[in-house]
Formats: sequence, C-alpha cells, structure tokens
Amino acid sequence: MGETLGDLGEFGLISRLLERVPVRGDAVVVGPGADDAAVVQVGDRSLIATADLSIEGRHFDRRFSSPSDIGWKALTVNVSDIAAMGGRPLWALLSIGAPADTAVEVLEQLYDGIAEAARAQGVLIIGGDTVGADVLVVSVALLGEPGSAGPVTRGGAHEGDLLCVTGALGAAAAGLALLRSGEDGDGEARALLARFPGLAEAHRRPIARVREGRAAAEAGARAMIDVSDGFSQDARHLHEASRIGGGLDPDAVPRAEGVVEADAWMHARDPVHRSFALNGGDDYELIMAVPPEVLEAVTAAVAPTALTVVGGFEFVQLALEEDGGGWDSFKGPR
Amino acid sequence: MGETLGDLGEFGLISRLLERVPVRGDAVVVGPGADDAAVVQVGDRSLIATADLSIEGRHFDRRFSSPSDIGWKALTVNVSDIAAMGGRPLWALLSIGAPADTAVEVLEQLYDGIAEAARAQGVLIIGGDTVGADVLVVSVALLGEPGSAGPVTRGGAHEGDLLCVTGALGAAAAGLALLRSGEDGDGEARALLARFPGLAEAHRRPIARVREGRAAAEAGARAMIDVSDGFSQDARHLHEASRIGGGLDPDAVPRAEGVVEADAWMHARDPVHRSFALNGGDDYELIMAVPPEVLEAVTAAVAPTALTVVGGFEFVQLALEEDGGGWDSFKGPR
Repeated sequence: MGETLGDLGEFGLISRLLERVPVRGDAVVVGPGADDAAVVQVGDRSLIATADLSIEGRHFDRRFSSPSDIGWKALTVNVSDIAAMGGRPLWALLSIGAPADTAVEVLEQLYDGIAEAARAQGVLIIGGDTVGADVLVVSVALLGEPGSAGPVTRGGAHEGDLLCVTGALGAAAAGLALLRSGEDGDGEARALLARFPGLAEAHRRPIARVREGRAAAEAGARAMIDVSDGFSQDARHLHEASRIGGGLDPDAVPRAEGVVEADAWMHARDPVHRSFALNGGDDYELIMAVPPEVLEAVTAAVAPTALTVVGGFEFVQLALEEDGGGWDSFKGPR
Repeated sequence: MGETLGDLGEFGLISRLLERVPVRGDAVVVGPGADDAAVVQVGDRSLIATADLSIEGRHFDRRFSSPSDIGWKALTVNVSDIAAMGGRPLWALLSIGAPADTAVEVLEQLYDGIAEAARAQGVLIIGGDTVGADVLVVSVALLGEPGSAGPVTRGGAHEGDLLCVTGALGAAAAGLALLRSGEDGDGEARALLARFPGLAEAHRRPIARVREGRAAAEAGARAMIDVSDGFSQDARHLHEASRIGGGLDPDAVPRAEGVVEADAWMHARDPVHRSFALNGGDDYELIMAVPPEVLEAVTAAVAPTALTVVGGFEFVQLALEEDGGGWDSFKGPR
C-alpha cells in the first residue's frame, strides 16, 4: 500500500512484477530478468530477443542529441544486448510515438539515424508502429541469432576465470555530465568538451561490440554482459548470475580518452565522485569471464579492440548467500 | 519543409519513413507496412512478429479502463495481429514506462491484466524493460508461429472470393463514445451503457480471434486482416493488398448487441454518423477472403463464432491503378 515505482526502483520492481506473469515454457532457454536478452528455441535454431524503450527527457535530451543521434542510439542499445549474448542482430520492430506537431524532417532524421545503425550492423527493420504521443518515444524490439558457440549468458563464469573488459570506459557518462554543465554555463565543462570531442560523441553515438562479442565467445569467453548501467553494477550482475564472487582493481578499469580529466573536473564539484569509468554507464563495452588458458586467444580475437584484465572470479558463494558481504571486495582493490 | 506528422497522418508517414531504412533481405518473407505482422524465416520455421505501442491519453483513458484492462488490451491487440496471419502467439517482450509516483499496486494490476490475456492465449513473457516516463506507456512486441497452412497475408484474395467477417462489430467504438459522453453527463449514454454492458466491456477487454484465424486458414480462407482501424478501412486494406476491388453491403455487416441503439443515439448528435460497425474500429474481429467452395467448411471451422458474408472480390484492378475510383463501391451498397 502506498509504495511507488520510485520507492522500489527498476530492478526491485521488475522481479516483483515478473512473478505475476507466465514466463516459463519448454522453448524458453533464457527467460526475462535473467540476462541481457531472452533466448527461445525455434525449431532447431535459437533466437535472441530483446527490447528497450527510450523516452524524451528520460533517455535523451534534444538539446544534446540530434534526431539522428537518438535513432542511432535507440537501435544500438538493443544491438548491444545481443552483442552481450555473443550473437548477431538480424531484425528490428520499431515503435515510434511523436507529437502531432513534430516536423516530418525530424522523424526522417530519426529514421536516418536508425538506418545508419541498422546498416552498420546488418539489421533489417521488419515492422512496428507509429502513434501520437506527447513526447518522442522510441521503442525497439530486436531479434538476433547466437554465434557458433551458442548464446553466452551472464551465468557461465567458473572459479579462476579472469574478469575482462573491452575498450575503455567512462566517455559517455562524462560527455553527458559535461554537456549538462556546459548548458548551464560551466566554461570549464565546455573547454573539456572542446578538447575531448570523443566524450560527447560517446554519449550521442555509442558503438555496440557485436564483432568483439562473437569473436570472444568463439575463442572461449564464457559469461558476458554489456556496460549499460555502469561498470561496477554490471560486473556485479556477472558475478551474481554466475554465483561466484571475486575482486577487481578499480584502477585497472581502462579510462577512455578525456575521462581522467573529466573525473578531476567532477571530483572538484562532488568529492565522492570516483570515476565515470566505474559508475557512469552507457558505455556498451563488454565485460566477460575469460578462462586464463584462453586469455591470449580471446585478446587476439577481439583485436584491434583492447581487452583488459581488471579482476577475477573467486569462489565466495557462501558469503554471498548469507548476506551479500562477498561484494565488499568490489568497494576497494583486492 | 514545415510539414508535420499531423499533416501526413500515420499511414502516409510510415510508408515515407520506411523508404529510409533497410527492410529487404532473404529471410524476410513479409516486411514492414505490408501486413498485420512481419514474417521471417528462422531455419526451417517461419516466425511472425508484431509490435504495438499504447500511450495513456491516446490509446487508453484511465477514467474508463482499469490498469488490468489496459494490460489485457495492450497484449490482446498484438495477439490479434498474429491471429490475422492465421498464427499462434508464443512470446512477448514487454516495455513499460511509468511515472515514478505510480503506485506499485497499479503496476501489479497492469501486469495481472497482461497475465490474464497471456494465459488465455498461451503467451509467455520473455523479456522487456521498465523505465520512467511522464505517462503510462505500454509497448509490446509479440512473436508467434504460423498455422499448418502457413502465414495468411492480406494479399491472397482471388477473384470470386467472398468477403466475410467473424462475430459482430461496433461494440468497442460504441462503448468508448458512450463512456466519453456519459462522463460528460449525458444521461442517455449512461442508460445505454447500463442496458448493454457488453459495449464498455468490448472497449476494455477485446477478444483476439486466434482460434478462428487458424481454423479458417486451415479450412481455406486465403487473405485476412483484423479490424483495428474500422471495418471499412480494414476491408479496403484487404482489397488493396490483393489488388482486387469489389463491393460490399454495409447493411450486411453484423452489428454487435446494442450497436443499433448506440448508432441511433449517435446519429441524433452527428447526422453523418452511419454505424460504429462500419467505421468504429477496435473490434479485433477478422475479415477474410473465402473461396465460395470452402465457405461451408470455413463457417464450420470458426463456429460457434459467427461468420457472415458481407461482400466479394471482383476484378477491377485497372480502375484501382488509374485513380483508386474502384473504391467507390465501398461508399454504398453494391
């Protein structure tokens, strides 16, 4: 009684709501709430399915992103969920809500951004819906197929595996924070944006690591998640789903160009700020569990994209089950 | 320049926007904009896919529909798209947007309504997203499989086929019009709602004709569409996609219980109003092309649901191609 969505938060709510709907069936290999995407069996094939809803004022701000940026990102965040299963995206259903006074040009640019991202990843638009709305709403459902190694879940890590991450982190969150402060007149933020154009670009046009996810899976990576909520939180999902704790070295998490400078700028304003690379989100890099014996092969497979070892999986299951205390290792260097 | 979504309308816009995105590929059997749902090839199986976006204040009004009604309907309109392909719904991706101050109870009831509709149709919820929004947004993507006769498109009608419709029409649109006027203090509207409770119920809890669509397809119906925009408009889609004109008898279109009375009520307020059964929408009955030689078999297959012959397909393709004038036959009895 009286409890609201705001009290529970997205994660608490989803698990409570999913208890109320039918979710289990023979053909459902990976169900809802468990992973980056669902996996169902269609004949002798597996199909990966995911959906994300982007709403103006919540997920994008038209002061900072052009309509084509918004379209690019709405498709890319879904592509990233399929990349994190080691899969390849195939078909998208696109539902757009827009106010009646929206210029057709704006919608055309939105579709152009979707088309750019779709062509870059080999995605076809197979259907959808266009309806009236008070603000711009972009809802994407995306279907894909797993690679030859099968779908890679979050839960496949084994004891002794290395915790690795592709690319470098923090740029998108730093970019958004700087854009917001720059809009409010912060000259230092504007200077940083001018000096490191990759920061705003990472916020506007993230890259999904489809090739890297597939190649890593084929080379032996056995648990994967994409960085959407922030590295620390997403790495934790990987540990929890695999029911193996572990440690990581926060200083080893690779910072994207300009993130160290943006961190210093932010730290001066918020003394508890540590790094956009750890808690920022929207990076769409892949975190994965890699057995030490295939580290070299996986590194070669994802090249020229960098792969960095930032921690490991250690068996502290009991502590996890008792009080979640196993996660303390996340709060400092191991 | 300066043209808005409102100027073009949903249909004009979709076709223009679809020209900008990649839509064609070997595995795409039915692409976007062409039918009730898309069809793709997954290995040796076909998969039907559809998506619909429902937005508070546009597609539902919380004064007239409970949260569980909204959930029921959001899933059912997608199920109906798959029914209109002669298919069976299997898996849904559910993306919900809601204001942070939404009571958890409201979301639980929304999910309960989705669960009721899902259980009634054998649908499993396999994934989705829950995000913040200013109003309630329910976005559903639904996957299904065709029946043994394969997917039934809108374009399969042949010359001489009969134009048939399941059930009876007009209840949902009449219900909504009466609910709105009743809310504004119209005593006659309230009396009609009390006398014919099926009218408001049809608006709140539509039924998708999954069993009927499959059975009709197996018995030989060869083109199908569901009535979402209104009988006249949806029947026209069937003729256009099949590139065959034809006529229909508007008086033969079966009126649901209370619709004749609601039409009289509406006609007194709007002299051009003809019937909620012809232009109302939201009926989710199936319109189909039935070869005369299988009419008896199709009628038996959909029973106990009624099947009514309301018109036919006649070859007037040239007139259609020249100026669309072939459609005049829709405006009056043939």
